[in-house]
Amino acid sequence: MKQPIRICMVGAGRVGKNHLRAISRHVPSGQIVALVDPVQPVLHETGTEFEIEQQFASLEEALEGAEFDAVIITTPTPTHLPLTSLAARHGKQVFLEKPMALNLEECDQINAVTAEHHVLLQIGFMRRFDPEFVAASQRIEAGEIGQPMMIKSNTHGPGLPPPWARDLRTSNGMLAEVNSHDWDTLRWLMGSNLERVYTEVANFKGAANNVDTPNFYDNVLVNVKFESGGLGLISGVCPCGYGYDARAEIIGEKGIMLIGSLEGQALVVCTNRDHGLVQPVVRTWPERFQWAYIYELEHFVECIRTDTPPRASGLDGRLAVAGVLAGTKSFLEGRPVYLKEITG
Amino acid sequence: MKQPIRICMVGAGRVGKNHLRAISRHVPSGQIVALVDPVQPVLHETGTEFEIEQQFASLEEALEGAEFDAVIITTPTPTHLPLTSLAARHGKQVFLEKPMALNLEECDQINAVTAEHHVLLQIGFMRRFDPEFVAASQRIEAGEIGQPMMIKSNTHGPGLPPPWARDLRTSNGMLAEVNSHDWDTLRWLMGSNLERVYTEVANFKGAANNVDTPNFYDNVLVNVKFESGGLGLISGVCPCGYGYDARAEIIGEKGIMLIGSLEGQALVVCTNRDHGLVQPVVRTWPERFQWAYIYELEHFVECIRTDTPPRASGLDGRLAVAGVLAGTKSFLEGRPVYLKEITG
Amino acid sequence: MKQPIRICMVGAGRVGKNHLRAISRHVPSGQIVALVDPVQPVLHETGTEFEIEQQFASLEEALEGAEFDAVIITTPTPTHLPLTSLAARHGKQVFLEKPMALNLEECDQINAVTAEHHVLLQIGFMRRFDPEFVAASQRIEAGEIGQPMMIKSNTHGPGLPPPWARDLRTSNGMLAEVNSHDWDTLRWLMGSNLERVYTEVANFKGAANNVDTPNFYDNVLVNVKFESGGLGLISGVCPCGYGYDARAEIIGEKGIMLIGSLEGQALVVCTNRDHGLVQPVVRTWPERFQWAYIYELEHFVECIRTDTPPRASGLDGRLAVAGVLAGTKSFLEGRPVYLKEITG
Amino acid sequence: MKQPIRICMVGAGRVGKNHLRAISRHVPSGQIVALVDPVQPVLHETGTEFEIEQQFASLEEALEGAEFDAVIITTPTPTHLPLTSLAARHGKQVFLEKPMALNLEECDQINAVTAEHHVLLQIGFMRRFDPEFVAASQRIEAGEIGQPMMIKSNTHGPGLPPPWARDLRTSNGMLAEVNSHDWDTLRWLMGSNLERVYTEVANFKGAANNVDTPNFYDNVLVNVKFESGGLGLISGVCPCGYGYDARAEIIGEKGIMLIGSLEGQALVVCTNRDHGLVQPVVRTWPERFQWAYIYELEHFVECIRTDTPPRASGLDGRLAVAGVLAGTKSFLEGRPVYLKEITG
Repeated sequence: MKQPIRICMVGAGRVGKNHLRAISRHVPSGQIVALVDPVQPVLHETGTEFEIEQQFASLEEALEGAEFDAVIITTPTPTHLPLTSLAARHGKQVFLEKPMALNLEECDQINAVTAEHHVLLQIGFMRRFDPEFVAASQRIEAGEIGQPMMIKSNTHGPGLPPPWARDLRTSNGMLAEVNSHDWDTLRWLMGSNLERVYTEVANFKGAANNVDTPNFYDNVLVNVKFESGGLGLISGVCPCGYGYDARAEIIGEKGIMLIGSLEGQALVVCTNRDHGLVQPVVRTWPERFQWAYIYELEHFVECIRTDTPPRASGLDGRLAVAGVLAGTKSFLEGRPVYLKEITG
Repeated sequence: MKQPIRICMVGAGRVGKNHLRAISRHVPSGQIVALVDPVQPVLHETGTEFEIEQQFASLEEALEGAEFDAVIITTPTPTHLPLTSLAARHGKQVFLEKPMALNLEECDQINAVTAEHHVLLQIGFMRRFDPEFVAASQRIEAGEIGQPMMIKSNTHGPGLPPPWARDLRTSNGMLAEVNSHDWDTLRWLMGSNLERVYTEVANFKGAANNVDTPNFYDNVLVNVKFESGGLGLISGVCPCGYGYDARAEIIGEKGIMLIGSLEGQALVVCTNRDHGLVQPVVRTWPERFQWAYIYELEHFVECIRTDTPPRASGLDGRLAVAGVLAGTKSFLEGRPVYLKEITG
Repeated sequence: MKQPIRICMVGAGRVGKNHLRAISRHVPSGQIVALVDPVQPVLHETGTEFEIEQQFASLEEALEGAEFDAVIITTPTPTHLPLTSLAARHGKQVFLEKPMALNLEECDQINAVTAEHHVLLQIGFMRRFDPEFVAASQRIEAGEIGQPMMIKSNTHGPGLPPPWARDLRTSNGMLAEVNSHDWDTLRWLMGSNLERVYTEVANFKGAANNVDTPNFYDNVLVNVKFESGGLGLISGVCPCGYGYDARAEIIGEKGIMLIGSLEGQALVVCTNRDHGLVQPVVRTWPERFQWAYIYELEHFVECIRTDTPPRASGLDGRLAVAGVLAGTKSFLEGRPVYLKEITG
Repeated sequence: MKQPIRICMVGAGRVGKNHLRAISRHVPSGQIVALVDPVQPVLHETGTEFEIEQQFASLEEALEGAEFDAVIITTPTPTHLPLTSLAARHGKQVFLEKPMALNLEECDQINAVTAEHHVLLQIGFMRRFDPEFVAASQRIEAGEIGQPMMIKSNTHGPGLPPPWARDLRTSNGMLAEVNSHDWDTLRWLMGSNLERVYTEVANFKGAANNVDTPNFYDNVLVNVKFESGGLGLISGVCPCGYGYDARAEIIGEKGIMLIGSLEGQALVVCTNRDHGLVQPVVRTWPERFQWAYIYELEHFVECIRTDTPPRASGLDGRLAVAGVLAGTKSFLEGRPVYLKEITG
């Protein structure tokens, strides 16, 4: 048995706990040795739940007080650049949650600092490790459905994002915080970068949820034109109430491929013929992507061990942010926006 | 446009109305010109609903008072022999509902009288006309799954059968009145006759439904050994409450085939992630076999027009009755029963 | 039995034959008494197949030579106005295939002339009669999924449309000839008219199919903003090769509804575990909408009998054409187009 | 982090490797510290693959040469009693694969020796840890489908069992080695013990596979009567070629529940409308029960830590063996066999 890679988890909230659960229960090759969160009760509660003795209010303190090989950063987007820079400068390998950053300048700085200090950078695009998405990608690349012509990807989630994540003044809103993965999925499965996007948004539940943030939206459709000539669609609904819905469809010159399902378990019940068949829906993202989270973290550890560049790279992260910025600009200005307007 | 075949419907109850609906709305090649039922209010009500002016209390009266080419007999099983005999002696083509008769002697007489008077005899095994079952049969015959090794067929229905149909003193009970089709499906898709059967029954809801008939059962499993060496299963549950459930599975040397589904419509709804996905179930047999009823009646008319033997024959009807008798004898005597004990 | 409504079928091609099949086999309340087609071999072949003795090269000749109550017009879109006008002036009830016409002026004239002569006008939006779409509509109206926020509707068809139907100089292209139904479905299920649209198109297979029509496209995505504030999507792929794919998804404030499926039959086969489960796909539109075609034609006959306005009206037809025109203008001009730019 | 439980894996074959994979990759709370197999090349190869340095030809040698807390026994059935006895006498906790033993006497001895030495005994009924089966069990117990009336459980597997496992002179054949789980599932989900069974078997592929063992069968159907009055079915096909098929259906007084599916991934592809939709099938048992294997091993470790009796007990193992013996006796004697004939 090799020694596990020692990891400092930065962020003890929802995403941090998801990764702690994955690693502590199912990824023996990694070991969480320190936990960081500026909010003391959250830090304490999560630390206790996962039996992590070394708890710190900041990454600085952790770097001083504990020994570890890598960090997993699961804190709000605006903190991604400073935390990554700090970790990189201390030679720590970096797993960074999506979205990578608020803008391309930050993405560029993150990529530069990790390269300069020769540390790995993996972005938390776990769909690239989901068995179904991976099989889909391999089969598309093998030519099974021919040249991709059209791709649709949706992420509809049950919960209203936190205030900072739905406010265009502090984040890039739902397109970034909820639909982040779709931007990456589109590029990945289409095998092409985006050329231009057109976005429509709607706000149906904001008032009922007492959200009066300017430009808040809870429904979004992004029409995409790829450099390859193909077409794409990103669909977002949040909060959607009916479950966690992450599916994709790709149509190639030779055929169609449907990835994912609403079905949460193969367990069908009928007790009333007027009501009908009832089957569990996928309820949450940790449930839908349970294996994907395990595999992306195994991959991170394995990349550290073998000094291999991770599959979900800082370039992928940067291009997803570019899409978000173009998509947002589109609905704010009511016109199609070219990616080159964003990337220069 | 050819003149439609003129039909006298004998029996104005549930099955009769199902066929009246199919013919009057969707089978223009047949025309119901007379209706027979001994129960005056039923006769009148059904006749009015389907705008059939010529209504009679008996087939005798109809034969005297109306002109027609064929009869469709949908009355209780004990009447099948006398009605078929009467119709055949008057040269009328016969469509006879399942089960064909109460015993093999009656089956033999029905086959003899229709042969003697050169009239067609079609038994109401509509599964032989259901698009899914037909496609399955053709693909099995084409060798797609290889030599069939095992077949399971179930009919679970929502409603308690009428008293005569669940009493072994006046009918052959659920194995005959509900599972009649399964006996035929087994032979048809297996391509072999039955060698022996073993039956287990259970009575769970009789008491709650105030049924105190001797030997009443509402659950049945029949284990079948075919002459081909293959295995079979018939499953019956009635009343089952959750819908109308008629599915089959066949395993051949090369693979598996699943026929039918509980899904009534491709219409999935989710409004509560704790409750799950909800989809309509198949609620009734007229819904499940809507096309099968239309096609079997079109077939009957077409066979009359072209003087061709119908696909679901009196021999098929007889062998289904033989299975029913063996299956019933098995659970009454607690032992496997060979078909040759029944057929001699 | 009432006398059937006598119908003259105008157009003996693919759609005409589909309706002839539906009526002659499954709609006894209508009777095709005359057939019109300017192409003699097509006229003769179709007339022979369906045993229609009265065959005419033009509607004018049919009006002189035959007696009928109604016409079903299945000819190319540019002929819709003159044929409807002629029929209406002779007091014939009109069933008119989609798309209603090439532009709003023609739609207006069609609506005017049928109103002036007090004849019914039903547009061939058969999805309004499909059992699954009808159930969906009723359940949405009953509030089951709450206020609709987003709707996606797709029509992907297997065959390359005929030259006139894919050329923007002689038709409105695929958005009109293939996706016609989606425009109507969106309005119908959303319960709102469209406010603006943005369209992206792609041409992947044109060259391989020797299509060099200007502005030809075989993939299209239309992003829709409704007057209600909701979002919509129309997706078109033709030719798509993998089957006939007509599905819709609606997300409301309370939940999601998925209509339709790629599954053509509940018949699953597996003979090779490396290949997987195989199930028939919906192959063609006549197969997918078999009941819808029967029911829309029954409805037309019933509306004639009872002098009731049909469910799929000239207004519905006109608004679908308006959508097509806006959608086409959008991709030609590379900008979102408001419906009021089209409707004035 | 607590110290992991140290485990000696006894048996380096197919099942042993499955458990090694589960533990080493996904169950950090357990650690394989020693490996036992009498076949040197197998021992060496498996040991190398999983980086287990301490390799032994026998459990005796392992007990002398290594320190561990528990054993996992995955060797052929006839070795279960001696190996369990040896481990128990040395105070090692025991995880024992199914079937527990060849007869009830051995089961009794296994239960006695583990009880005497106060070591835990868990039988490898991993379906009791499968998320779908667990959810089904909980919902049945909660009364969701009412009193269970009928249950069907099948295990159809792709590969021909090894010679010893298909020969009634050295094992109890397929009913024991393949359908072992079904016997347990029936009791578990029905909430009742079996009263009598009737078995039919068939041999279709033996000759083609050069199997001339007496009484060899590759298809089996067992009709079950429960003490509760309910009915049951066990279905076995092996080798079946089309995949690994483990599903169950339960019908209760209030409704039906279907557990499991043939679908291996939510990844549907269609590239040819004449061929149809293609979806991965479940190919193997490690794939179908991936989580179940992880959870049963986590459970074993947790039971050791907390000194709690495991969920799948020696009593459960014993009653499954009793079913196997009754089922086998039934087809050998051609009659229904009561469980009390076996259990005395």
